[in-house]
Amino acid sequence: MFFASDNSGPAAPQIIDALVAENHGYASAYGNDATMQTVAENIRTAFEAPDAAVYLVATGTAANAISIATLTRPWQTVFCHEHAHVEEDECGAPEFYAGGVKLTTVGGADGKIKPELLIGEIRKTGCLGVHGVQVGTLSITNVTERGTVYSPEEVRTLTGIARNHGMHCHLDGARLANALVATGCTPAEATWKSGIDVVSLGGTKNGLIGVEGVVLFDPELAWEFELRRKRGGHLFSKHRFLSAQMKAYFEDSLWLELAGRANAAASRLAEGLAKIGTAHFVHPVEANMIFAGWSRSGHERAQSEGAQYYLWPPHQDSSDRDNDVLTARLVCNWATTDDEIDRFLELIDDQNT
Amino acid sequence: MFFASDNSGPAAPQIIDALVAENHGYASAYGNDATMQTVAENIRTAFEAPDAAVYLVATGTAANAISIATLTRPWQTVFCHEHAHVEEDECGAPEFYAGGVKLTTVGGADGKIKPELLIGEIRKTGCLGVHGVQVGTLSITNVTERGTVYSPEEVRTLTGIARNHGMHCHLDGARLANALVATGCTPAEATWKSGIDVVSLGGTKNGLIGVEGVVLFDPELAWEFELRRKRGGHLFSKHRFLSAQMKAYFEDSLWLELAGRANAAASRLAEGLAKIGTAHFVHPVEANMIFAGWSRSGHERAQSEGAQYYLWPPHQDSSDRDNDVLTARLVCNWATTDDEIDRFLELIDDQNT
Amino acid sequence: MFFASDNSGPAAPQIIDALVAENHGYASAYGNDATMQTVAENIRTAFEAPDAAVYLVATGTAANAISIATLTRPWQTVFCHEHAHVEEDECGAPEFYAGGVKLTTVGGADGKIKPELLIGEIRKTGCLGVHGVQVGTLSITNVTERGTVYSPEEVRTLTGIARNHGMHCHLDGARLANALVATGCTPAEATWKSGIDVVSLGGTKNGLIGVEGVVLFDPELAWEFELRRKRGGHLFSKHRFLSAQMKAYFEDSLWLELAGRANAAASRLAEGLAKIGTAHFVHPVEANMIFAGWSRSGHERAQSEGAQYYLWPPHQDSSDRDNDVLTARLVCNWATTDDEIDRFLELIDDQNT
Amino acid sequence: MFFASDNSGPAAPQIIDALVAENHGYASAYGNDATMQTVAENIRTAFEAPDAAVYLVATGTAANAISIATLTRPWQTVFCHEHAHVEEDECGAPEFYAGGVKLTTVGGADGKIKPELLIGEIRKTGCLGVHGVQVGTLSITNVTERGTVYSPEEVRTLTGIARNHGMHCHLDGARLANALVATGCTPAEATWKSGIDVVSLGGTKNGLIGVEGVVLFDPELAWEFELRRKRGGHLFSKHRFLSAQMKAYFEDSLWLELAGRANAAASRLAEGLAKIGTAHFVHPVEANMIFAGWSRSGHERAQSEGAQYYLWPPHQDSSDRDNDVLTARLVCNWATTDDEIDRFLELIDDQNT
Repeated sequence: MFFASDNSGPAAPQIIDALVAENHGYASAYGNDATMQTVAENIRTAFEAPDAAVYLVATGTAANAISIATLTRPWQTVFCHEHAHVEEDECGAPEFYAGGVKLTTVGGADGKIKPELLIGEIRKTGCLGVHGVQVGTLSITNVTERGTVYSPEEVRTLTGIARNHGMHCHLDGARLANALVATGCTPAEATWKSGIDVVSLGGTKNGLIGVEGVVLFDPELAWEFELRRKRGGHLFSKHRFLSAQMKAYFEDSLWLELAGRANAAASRLAEGLAKIGTAHFVHPVEANMIFAGWSRSGHERAQSEGAQYYLWPPHQDSSDRDNDVLTARLVCNWATTDDEIDRFLELIDDQNT
Repeated sequence: MFFASDNSGPAAPQIIDALVAENHGYASAYGNDATMQTVAENIRTAFEAPDAAVYLVATGTAANAISIATLTRPWQTVFCHEHAHVEEDECGAPEFYAGGVKLTTVGGADGKIKPELLIGEIRKTGCLGVHGVQVGTLSITNVTERGTVYSPEEVRTLTGIARNHGMHCHLDGARLANALVATGCTPAEATWKSGIDVVSLGGTKNGLIGVEGVVLFDPELAWEFELRRKRGGHLFSKHRFLSAQMKAYFEDSLWLELAGRANAAASRLAEGLAKIGTAHFVHPVEANMIFAGWSRSGHERAQSEGAQYYLWPPHQDSSDRDNDVLTARLVCNWATTDDEIDRFLELIDDQNT
Repeated sequence: MFFASDNSGPAAPQIIDALVAENHGYASAYGNDATMQTVAENIRTAFEAPDAAVYLVATGTAANAISIATLTRPWQTVFCHEHAHVEEDECGAPEFYAGGVKLTTVGGADGKIKPELLIGEIRKTGCLGVHGVQVGTLSITNVTERGTVYSPEEVRTLTGIARNHGMHCHLDGARLANALVATGCTPAEATWKSGIDVVSLGGTKNGLIGVEGVVLFDPELAWEFELRRKRGGHLFSKHRFLSAQMKAYFEDSLWLELAGRANAAASRLAEGLAKIGTAHFVHPVEANMIFAGWSRSGHERAQSEGAQYYLWPPHQDSSDRDNDVLTARLVCNWATTDDEIDRFLELIDDQNT
Repeated sequence: MFFASDNSGPAAPQIIDALVAENHGYASAYGNDATMQTVAENIRTAFEAPDAAVYLVATGTAANAISIATLTRPWQTVFCHEHAHVEEDECGAPEFYAGGVKLTTVGGADGKIKPELLIGEIRKTGCLGVHGVQVGTLSITNVTERGTVYSPEEVRTLTGIARNHGMHCHLDGARLANALVATGCTPAEATWKSGIDVVSLGGTKNGLIGVEGVVLFDPELAWEFELRRKRGGHLFSKHRFLSAQMKAYFEDSLWLELAGRANAAASRLAEGLAKIGTAHFVHPVEANMIFAGWSRSGHERAQSEGAQYYLWPPHQDSSDRDNDVLTARLVCNWATTDDEIDRFLELIDDQNT
């Protein structure tokens, strides 16, 4: 019963197999391996973007920070949701990589940027001339940090606002595969057809060992990205072992299959929760994450049986925790089983006591 | 009728005289001039801080950014009011000087940080371990950007919270002299006795040509500050011309005399505004700045006669400006005359038409 | 016949096995996995350093740059050999991570810093007070970039000079295992007993997929290192897959066994070269790298048969390449076979034509 | 007898007069003062560059560092002479402002970059692809740090090499006026007609209180420069006091008149030195600086009478100073008098004892 994060699960067997198979002889280092050629071709095909530049790094923070740095000058600001990973969970990596940029946080329910609030923040940013930081980049996250999913129309609304103000648009797609499964739209529709310039294409949370793609639809950005990647220490010598994972990830739509399993597991869990009288949902359940509350006694039973997950928000103080209903974040991944879901639901339901 | 800013007025005659008198022969460069010795002694005496390190730079942004960088590591965050100068008016200078720090803005009425909100932001900051930026420095501004003044008790409340969380405390005292006059407290009471570690000691807005002091009550910070100042290009070779201004500023309490004039001018202006039926105050008037609204027709008469000031907030859009009552920021300085105040009041009062 | 670099070969089978074995169930993310506990213990034991902090990253550039940034303030300089990896091959990563430090390069034959030259550079650095950058950190590389090996005595001479000037000392040990095999000294003798504070402990060039350790003998540096690692995007969520590799690397002295094979291969190759009349050595052969010259015709035969290696130095212009004797860098790794060495030697020897 | 530096002397009386005259009423802040308009026009006229963007800052380090940062990306390197001010005397300000660039130092006699050595360094820089820092900017200094002067032809040779490799060219003209007087060439010939893109136009060492110009011949760079200036804390609110100085500096060719006096003083001093048997010159005397050696007894007599200057190089150790002949740097400025020169020459000549 592990629902703490999708970054703690095992790698998919196809990924391990690919990695083992890659381990023979010599391969050119630093991304010049033959396998990487295939990866780039497959990703370009999947995204219907024949000119895109494709790179691999090993962490989502690296993918986000290097991408944002490539799009943003040091005196600009990056507009993102107030709960975005780049704002809350990367220890200032975007600020570091981009030479001291500011992040301007924007509100909005359920982890999604509210367009009116974005417009308001942009207007304030632009009003002081040289005295204030300048309008820079929009970064949105899909699946959001609250488990909801932007539709292509919603993405287009935000990127349209950004483009009207001269901004580039970055997508933190740490869980992009889950968003694609949830919306049924194509990779192209979710990204460049909706105004996205650069995508952090998650793999680690979805069955890889530790590989994230970066897709730059404007190949003119490629060389700067390469230099920033190298300078950040994210250019791997034995790069073929990253390539092998990402190649397998795109074979037979494995990435969507794995995400589909995670989403389905969350659906099953949500359906079960909905039937429990004391439970409520904090945000809509649209992909593989659930934010929900239920009885303190239910939490205690589950935890005593080894269930792992975070109470939410993480900065609850003890007085919050005196409540009778505690809220939690539950994350499913490709390896979550029906059995552990059902066992968990049974434990948290006070009616079973 | 110039109320746009206290940074646009003339220098006080004593300052010009001191500068002219300094211009003879040779003096050691880079702060080693004899006049600087006197400046440091006088400031240490005025602040009852015999061990303090005292430096001069030429802009408030430099004073703030270098001070904050000296107190803050790159992965930390600086807590400041959402309308602080360091947040809104310095184009990211603190982020730049401190190597990519974050600024965490805190709300509060009338330009003052609300203690409960500060506590809330600190608690959120601390909850994610290595994943989030770390608690760093508190920066408060006195006189605030909304013209109000913190009492020593209010400062102590904020610095007490900060110190409980291991933070150092910076005071942006671009208008510190005005705050001292307004509260009647001593420089020591307003600063180190209230928990402040480093002060940006304003001069430029209060009658100097372009000099700001930095007072570090912990002399262990001195060498790092010196290196950061040099590296930022703020170590002046002909430093004696900065020293001469600051020396004159502290002779016969000139700094307080000049600030007293500015505050008195604002009082006179506020008293007159209070008598105008259509006028209202947005914030309490406590030092040399007034935020007030009055009739559109009053604005038009004043502006057509050459009155200069900013409508406020600066990012009003045109629809805001269709209102019948427009709000403005009016700043007095040491050279503001009774005549221009009275003339201005006459113009904006619809009863005089 | 692959001698281009030791970073292009396969991973050792034990490493792959460990990685496969690690792939089950859930593990705490971000370095909190149980396997990492074992890794830290094993490395502390191997280095006789029970208090050392041990971390893993995935590239040597990351290990070096984060280590150097942890030891060095932005206004300081890092003394390193003029051909050090940190100077020539990391695209300015140390400058980036450490906030704009300078690197002061020091000469010396065969890739080793000459003590007298180090003293001279330190003396020049210290002579300008606040106007110049400050003495910061010493970074030495062992095995050097020219394939030679520092003895513990040589390391102590350099670190002694550094410590006399208040500097910390970093060791780029990308090939530390090869140096240990070459000198026969213990990890402790090669590092902290010789004055080293922080070690970049190479794994990738010696049979891992992509893992480097960082050993900080002063645990007070640990938290800053952790923050810098996170902020650089080098904290892996599925960290256990790094841990598994490093655990296997230290089991049964595998790291020394692999390095021993690489060194032995280079010895065999060097012995063969020494017998070829037209060949000469540019630097002494002490570990797993050879810098040697031989006839143009020998190069042509080897390359036409698929031998891969770099002509050296890499910035030779075409006129250099008109020489009859061309110099090359040949690197052996744990997987280099006697057969490919012998075949290569046969090809380059003009007597065999 | 003050020959320590041209940055320690008084301001010219015309400058003080202009500053006093500027001190009336209100002026727009932050460079929007009317006087600055005149400054920009006058400098554009003087440099025959009607489109140039012109800015003022208060220190030479700021002028250099912001200019270089505007021309250089963080992963590039700046080629400069090994004794350039940006390399030796700015505590890493270019590295700081430009986000961690490297400086590649180039040798050459008498403070001038030797073209062949520049070519060699560029070639080495370009040979490693993404692994090494990239070719960025050329920065030359005229008058050089050794008191010599580049002819326009010499400048063109260097900028031609730089431009062939895609680099922009910066001129540190802290003593540009002295170079113009020395060569008799026009500002345009010394700068853009010789391939210079951005000039740091010195004023402080030549009779101003503390003002340096920056002239960007490509106005497309202007906005970035403005943002970097602000962010560095170098945008002055009471900017008119900088403008007033620079306006007076260009009236009636005052800048050249002042530089002419300094150069003439150095000529007189050099002629006198040449007549002293024990004296020798270390570098040719071409502007207002002299590097020369003479007897220890001569030094002792001069210093005991209060003569101020630096022994050179500054990092001489005590054993160097046991020599019978000690070398020194002597700098003349606009206010150096014939009397002090003659008195000094009398003192150092052993024949007068």
